[in-house]
Amino acid sequence: MKTLKVVKIGGKLIEDEAKLSSFLKDFAALEGPKILVHGGGNLATEIASRLGYETKIIDGRRITDQNSLDVIVMTYGGLINKRIVAKLQGLHCNAIGLCGADGRSVISIKREIKEIDYGFVGDITEINIGFINSLLDEGITPVFSAISCTKEGELLNTNGDSVASEIAIAMSGHYTTQLNFCFEKRGVLADAKDDSSVIPVLDRKDYESLKEKKIIGEGMLPKLHNCFNALDKGVSNIYLGDFTLLKNDSECTKIGK
Amino acid sequence: MKTLKVVKIGGKLIEDEAKLSSFLKDFAALEGPKILVHGGGNLATEIASRLGYETKIIDGRRITDQNSLDVIVMTYGGLINKRIVAKLQGLHCNAIGLCGADGRSVISIKREIKEIDYGFVGDITEINIGFINSLLDEGITPVFSAISCTKEGELLNTNGDSVASEIAIAMSGHYTTQLNFCFEKRGVLADAKDDSSVIPVLDRKDYESLKEKKIIGEGMLPKLHNCFNALDKGVSNIYLGDFTLLKNDSECTKIGK
Repeated sequence: MKTLKVVKIGGKLIEDEAKLSSFLKDFAALEGPKILVHGGGNLATEIASRLGYETKIIDGRRITDQNSLDVIVMTYGGLINKRIVAKLQGLHCNAIGLCGADGRSVISIKREIKEIDYGFVGDITEINIGFINSLLDEGITPVFSAISCTKEGELLNTNGDSVASEIAIAMSGHYTTQLNFCFEKRGVLADAKDDSSVIPVLDRKDYESLKEKKIIGEGMLPKLHNCFNALDKGVSNIYLGDFTLLKNDSECTKIGK
Repeated sequence: MKTLKVVKIGGKLIEDEAKLSSFLKDFAALEGPKILVHGGGNLATEIASRLGYETKIIDGRRITDQNSLDVIVMTYGGLINKRIVAKLQGLHCNAIGLCGADGRSVISIKREIKEIDYGFVGDITEINIGFINSLLDEGITPVFSAISCTKEGELLNTNGDSVASEIAIAMSGHYTTQLNFCFEKRGVLADAKDDSSVIPVLDRKDYESLKEKKIIGEGMLPKLHNCFNALDKGVSNIYLGDFTLLKNDSECTKIGK
């Protein structure tokens, strides 16, 4: 089977013009089929605040009300997505920007209200493999913003790591899939205060042990949960690293079974 | 040859939720291959003003500076485009939202600076017929925002009527193309103050005569220029009307050669 690289970029990488450009150059140069998934950094929060919208946070969790959703669709689905696509075109990578509604590519259901109503937040139920495959077969590179859509046509804010890993899982029936998470750090750190303490290989046993000892930070836990879930469900290789990950995977964290 | 319907919606239609919904229902129900092109109404101006950006106008023409372009990409390419796509999905029309950068679909060059520097404004040089055809062949309905892209990867603000007519012209080698312009009025009016004075058929001779007599309003002239250009270049039928045009073409203006 051919290898498909699914690459997620997030966090502050999106906001750092120089790092983003360097990353996109490496991404455009990758050979073979590839998919990019991006988050939005803090731009949505900034735009929301400038538009006079309040950001609602309950128990440390951001609530996506109608105004927040509109800002997310504008900034992630619009500005950031189209800027990335245009830059990739300039780098001779024939990209196409997508949210989950486009071609019914990422279908979700609205998160059930339990203790907290998270608002317009979606959990992915289906990836349109046929559609994504037909784009890849034509040499087109999908660039996904982290927005999904219900079957009834409602846009929903969705975790970018989940979009990346669900796509990688879904495509693993047709490809040997490699998942790459690019973010601020050079990998998973053994000591959150020491950027050079990158753990080179992390398997589930190590992960459980580090989790128990509370060595892995709060923000890292859902990312790693996503990783092990993806490995269990058919993804072949997973790497975590910074914006140089695609050209230099010697200084990153590889997730092992 | 099969018939392809290219439909442009613009002006205040975009901002009127009830009329837009009614229009999208009719659009979704159209049989056969179809393409939607949308403008953005006044939302970009409103968002720009709320973000504190000044709208620059020289000689009555809007100038697209970097801030204006960002807002246009956010609102037209993001919010409006994705909302329309999601609504169409809810109506069982498998739509895909595109700007010109996506799949290199609408390529342009930046408008030359003569007396006025219009800023980031593009004039279309190329439509990616193969890409659009491959979407249509898969039963996918492209929904274009009025944004194009240079070969070098620069996003440019582009006239929505031109996007619609250039696409219709380009596709007329493969299809019998029908171009529909939906806007506030029920058609081209013989008396701008009388909404019922719709001219049922307008040919070039009538147009030149009405233009000379200054019966046709300023805003209508570029739209009609686009129409006759499209007819000359292979588009078969052109209709202008309001949001009910797709289900009721008896009360509209048909452009004749």
